[in-house]
Amino acid sequence: MSANTFGSLFRLTTFGESHGPALGGVVDGCPPGVALSEAVIQTELDRRRPGQGGPAATARKEPDRVRLLSGVFEGRTTGTAIGFLIENTDQRSHDYAAIMDVFRPGHADMSYQAKFGVRDYRGGGRASARETVSRVAGGAVAQEFLSGLGVVVQAATVELGGVAAQGRDFAGALDRPFFAADAAAVDAWEARVRETKAAGDTLGGVVEIRAGGVPAGLGEPVFDKLDARLAYALMGVGAVKAVEIGAGLEAARLTGSANNDPMTPEGFLSNNAGGILGGISSGQELILRAAVKPIPSIARPQQTVDRQGRPVEITVGGRHDICAIPRIVPVLKAMVLLSLADFVLLQRRVG
Amino acid sequence: MSANTFGSLFRLTTFGESHGPALGGVVDGCPPGVALSEAVIQTELDRRRPGQGGPAATARKEPDRVRLLSGVFEGRTTGTAIGFLIENTDQRSHDYAAIMDVFRPGHADMSYQAKFGVRDYRGGGRASARETVSRVAGGAVAQEFLSGLGVVVQAATVELGGVAAQGRDFAGALDRPFFAADAAAVDAWEARVRETKAAGDTLGGVVEIRAGGVPAGLGEPVFDKLDARLAYALMGVGAVKAVEIGAGLEAARLTGSANNDPMTPEGFLSNNAGGILGGISSGQELILRAAVKPIPSIARPQQTVDRQGRPVEITVGGRHDICAIPRIVPVLKAMVLLSLADFVLLQRRVG
Amino acid sequence: MSANTFGSLFRLTTFGESHGPALGGVVDGCPPGVALSEAVIQTELDRRRPGQGGPAATARKEPDRVRLLSGVFEGRTTGTAIGFLIENTDQRSHDYAAIMDVFRPGHADMSYQAKFGVRDYRGGGRASARETVSRVAGGAVAQEFLSGLGVVVQAATVELGGVAAQGRDFAGALDRPFFAADAAAVDAWEARVRETKAAGDTLGGVVEIRAGGVPAGLGEPVFDKLDARLAYALMGVGAVKAVEIGAGLEAARLTGSANNDPMTPEGFLSNNAGGILGGISSGQELILRAAVKPIPSIARPQQTVDRQGRPVEITVGGRHDICAIPRIVPVLKAMVLLSLADFVLLQRRVG
Amino acid sequence: MSANTFGSLFRLTTFGESHGPALGGVVDGCPPGVALSEAVIQTELDRRRPGQGGPAATARKEPDRVRLLSGVFEGRTTGTAIGFLIENTDQRSHDYAAIMDVFRPGHADMSYQAKFGVRDYRGGGRASARETVSRVAGGAVAQEFLSGLGVVVQAATVELGGVAAQGRDFAGALDRPFFAADAAAVDAWEARVRETKAAGDTLGGVVEIRAGGVPAGLGEPVFDKLDARLAYALMGVGAVKAVEIGAGLEAARLTGSANNDPMTPEGFLSNNAGGILGGISSGQELILRAAVKPIPSIARPQQTVDRQGRPVEITVGGRHDICAIPRIVPVLKAMVLLSLADFVLLQRRVG
Repeated sequence: MSANTFGSLFRLTTFGESHGPALGGVVDGCPPGVALSEAVIQTELDRRRPGQGGPAATARKEPDRVRLLSGVFEGRTTGTAIGFLIENTDQRSHDYAAIMDVFRPGHADMSYQAKFGVRDYRGGGRASARETVSRVAGGAVAQEFLSGLGVVVQAATVELGGVAAQGRDFAGALDRPFFAADAAAVDAWEARVRETKAAGDTLGGVVEIRAGGVPAGLGEPVFDKLDARLAYALMGVGAVKAVEIGAGLEAARLTGSANNDPMTPEGFLSNNAGGILGGISSGQELILRAAVKPIPSIARPQQTVDRQGRPVEITVGGRHDICAIPRIVPVLKAMVLLSLADFVLLQRRVG
Repeated sequence: MSANTFGSLFRLTTFGESHGPALGGVVDGCPPGVALSEAVIQTELDRRRPGQGGPAATARKEPDRVRLLSGVFEGRTTGTAIGFLIENTDQRSHDYAAIMDVFRPGHADMSYQAKFGVRDYRGGGRASARETVSRVAGGAVAQEFLSGLGVVVQAATVELGGVAAQGRDFAGALDRPFFAADAAAVDAWEARVRETKAAGDTLGGVVEIRAGGVPAGLGEPVFDKLDARLAYALMGVGAVKAVEIGAGLEAARLTGSANNDPMTPEGFLSNNAGGILGGISSGQELILRAAVKPIPSIARPQQTVDRQGRPVEITVGGRHDICAIPRIVPVLKAMVLLSLADFVLLQRRVG
Repeated sequence: MSANTFGSLFRLTTFGESHGPALGGVVDGCPPGVALSEAVIQTELDRRRPGQGGPAATARKEPDRVRLLSGVFEGRTTGTAIGFLIENTDQRSHDYAAIMDVFRPGHADMSYQAKFGVRDYRGGGRASARETVSRVAGGAVAQEFLSGLGVVVQAATVELGGVAAQGRDFAGALDRPFFAADAAAVDAWEARVRETKAAGDTLGGVVEIRAGGVPAGLGEPVFDKLDARLAYALMGVGAVKAVEIGAGLEAARLTGSANNDPMTPEGFLSNNAGGILGGISSGQELILRAAVKPIPSIARPQQTVDRQGRPVEITVGGRHDICAIPRIVPVLKAMVLLSLADFVLLQRRVG
Repeated sequence: MSANTFGSLFRLTTFGESHGPALGGVVDGCPPGVALSEAVIQTELDRRRPGQGGPAATARKEPDRVRLLSGVFEGRTTGTAIGFLIENTDQRSHDYAAIMDVFRPGHADMSYQAKFGVRDYRGGGRASARETVSRVAGGAVAQEFLSGLGVVVQAATVELGGVAAQGRDFAGALDRPFFAADAAAVDAWEARVRETKAAGDTLGGVVEIRAGGVPAGLGEPVFDKLDARLAYALMGVGAVKAVEIGAGLEAARLTGSANNDPMTPEGFLSNNAGGILGGISSGQELILRAAVKPIPSIARPQQTVDRQGRPVEITVGGRHDICAIPRIVPVLKAMVLLSLADFVLLQRRVG
């Protein structure tokens, strides 16, 4: 419902700006008895850190240390609100004169100004990708809850700079550059990144998220269908411009006889549905993809305007990432984890 | 956030099954003073009727007459809840013996059973596309509210059976078969439909929705971003398997320099963003696409199981549509209308 | 959250005006498998009808017939939205010239005008007590669900016109005038009503609601405590001006040693807490009281103003009730039923 | 609608236990441009500190320092989420052996155990009154917003230990022991406290909250009426057992002619309604009262049970307060502030 809270029964509320004192959040609704520690959250945060995914990564250093502030007693959740905090350690005074009155193309500068009439221009403020650190922390809590139920969510990069990976090895992705779904794609992607960086430009890609062990019956038609809420969760991550379920866009080009997944006593024979029928999980693996646009901060002069609407030429890039991948991968995974935790609790009410 | 209510301030709650006595809903939160009548709602309902879009349409007759039950006084909304009702006139006793215990492939039979342990198998019950009649009625109320603010939402078919339309003429689409965005596409689509029907098969397609006159500033980061909620709105309509904003999936393949929309004193020079920056409307036209899977009810034998998990061969088709297009077009438009009405009200709180 | 929806998981959305075509609502979130029929709802509606509670009752005739429109299949709920409708049969054209521009003292005329800038002045419109018919229908659904769990909610009048009843016989209350908690109070109350009516005046009273069989553990601290939400539920019924839990106002005058309820292996030794500790049910009987103000429509001239702020003398009374009791009794019971159904579902998520 | 979030558009989410590392919260939805600093929040927190209200106060020292973590830029709110933190400085290791397995009478020990199956027994955990520090911080933000609109909320004690204050001087209350509404009551209350303390017992009382400058039109019938939501807000504070609006319980004993507030061109002639008609503010001053039960921790042996249901005698008191008053006074004020901020934003949507 509201801007900074996600979910209905398993809820994450977040706060924090790129260059403020700290970021953090509150997980509300996690059932009691779930084993939880700062360490398990830290593991997920570390995967979102720069330098985790090869040459696409930023040179900035963000040693995000999470503190658990409440809701855990003797190593387990108590059912009360779980507060957590990540201090911003790098708060050096920067020179923002160049951007405080200029709207960077492809960024939220212009739209935040239009919405609020004011904005914290330091590093993008609340619109910075830095806010996703709280999503990953919240997702880590959801993961601890779901893993106890046998639900496993994995994410990997399946396309970068227009070059698609063929294989789907999610287990190995965590150890590969770009969190690549296929080791065979890495060389081409690294070449693509190098040439793009040299050109002062940036890249986008596609991330696939899969969830196994999801029981049949999750989803709340007619409006809070599982696919609807997952699309909301993924599209709400900055840079995502398309979301697909199962066969996705391709389903529109298939005939019904090719797209339908036949059922047998041994299970479904295919999974074009991506594990969702009528907005409810079918018990099959969930398959989701998010298309990620290229980072808008490019190291080339761009045409734009300032707050007064006057024409300005701006060059933004520098120490920035040249692709939201791989850092966005654990964020997208976290959003699916948070969504599934919510649906598991919602389904309990059915009794 | 609940199953049958959509929106936060401008809210639609719906009810009704395919073969129950009636469908209907409640629009809550519509500001007072909006001109509203049964006639303006009926106009939209009629666009969703069979026979509106050429040979893809069903042969069933559903003369949906809407009754306004509350919230309107002397031709204008009063700010109180607007109840509406659509009686199901065709409630003949059918023979459901063939499907009451069988899960039709691609349908929600199996997942509803898993979720609720029981289901109204008559015509799909709540999972029937018939429930969208209430969405269209609610969208018509939103349209009356938004049109007073200069916001105009249009929808048209841009691809069918894998054949894309080139042009984008939304104004004319209402009068064309398939609500086609381009008259030039109609012949090929009609041929595609004829051959598919002859083969006992079904088709999918892509619908594009555009919104003009949308003020900059709509959207509620970080979770209720405009694109996130629009993706939720569209993906929540049965048969939709992918949602794109602006350049969509293609954005993932562009470089930053190609994807960024330059700003000038005269406005943006392109619209790859689809009118949304950082989850907030930029004042540009909103551009959305929804990929619609083929209708799962095909006139061919399919492999499936019954409630007891035993293998069954089933042939479902008959008097059914062979494509959710064009009937889904006004439904998708309604969902965007409802979403935008909500965001307009949410933005008012910013003061 | 929103004006016309009550509850979070077990939700009631209502619509309808005093003199519109119909009232009704949607119950969303009722678990599947609950036996439900128009008859069980009708029984509760009939208790809210005029003429059920002795000489305090109105002379108006409102034969409220409920129609179930969805969510029930073969006599049981399916887990989908339950729509219901009550047509307004008495829609004769009345002469409202006297009140369309005048604000009746103690009524919502003035405040609705201030809020919405417009109002349906016919019989109070949405502000009429007539809207509570939908609450009672929704409460009847909750009752069917809860009775299967052994939860029983009862309500009775314990004070009228300043005269308190001593006994507490809830089982018998349904058959007594005023739904009196004590037969011994009836004569005094009838005398009080007669003399007040003769004086052209009106009366208030106090209703007590008790819930037995409530399991320990219901309530959602820190904000959605059981007592907080019950206070919300009861205070939201028109005419209620105070809500007490357990010892209520009297608790403020007791010492801790007198107010604390000692626990023993056999259970609590007293129930000043009214069955709620720290906002969570303790397993004891819930005890609630609602103070109901006198009906503002009196058969005496009153000083007021019209829409233009000019002084006016008005005499409203006539065929109206002289006390909201007993008709409000089933309404208050319904609100507690709806609240408890919601909390039962919320507690299921704890697992 | 969830446990630890309060409000719909102006929202407070809180976390934190009595003996955990820190408490805090997130204010979401505060409009941009409101002047805000740690100092103005600190002022309100200091009023909640022990030692602010004479001999009833606790001897514990809780120097609560608030840190603002986000949502404020250059001294003004930006419209994004406002995070705040209050570290628990007194986390010495205590000896909880005596209470970890025993249910203190009148406390939430028993009900938390029933709800969650586990509880943080240190100092009451989440059920401790210590959680209200986050409510007061959130209320301070609401106050900064509302004061810019001319809305002023004040609270004072009007009854203690059964002894009522006659006068109503809210402006002076901040400087008086017990935040007394009438200086003349202080001596009697101090005597009452001394004698009760000597007897090892505790006291309750009544707090009145008034809001001036409230525009007509706030409140969202039929369920989110202003009085309903205020009752929810006040009853949700620990120890509150009754809530009254305007004449409150007394209204049930008045006749309609005595209870109705006549209107004249110069305004209302009385305020039995407490500023609310039909659930909507009338423009008159809001008048609310909350009855506060005596502190359950008494310095006398009490009969109770342990987790295994075995009989135990327990003596809890010691360094505790003997009355929730005066510390609860700023908490109740904060809840009204938060509620009104929410309703102001909700009313803006009416346009």
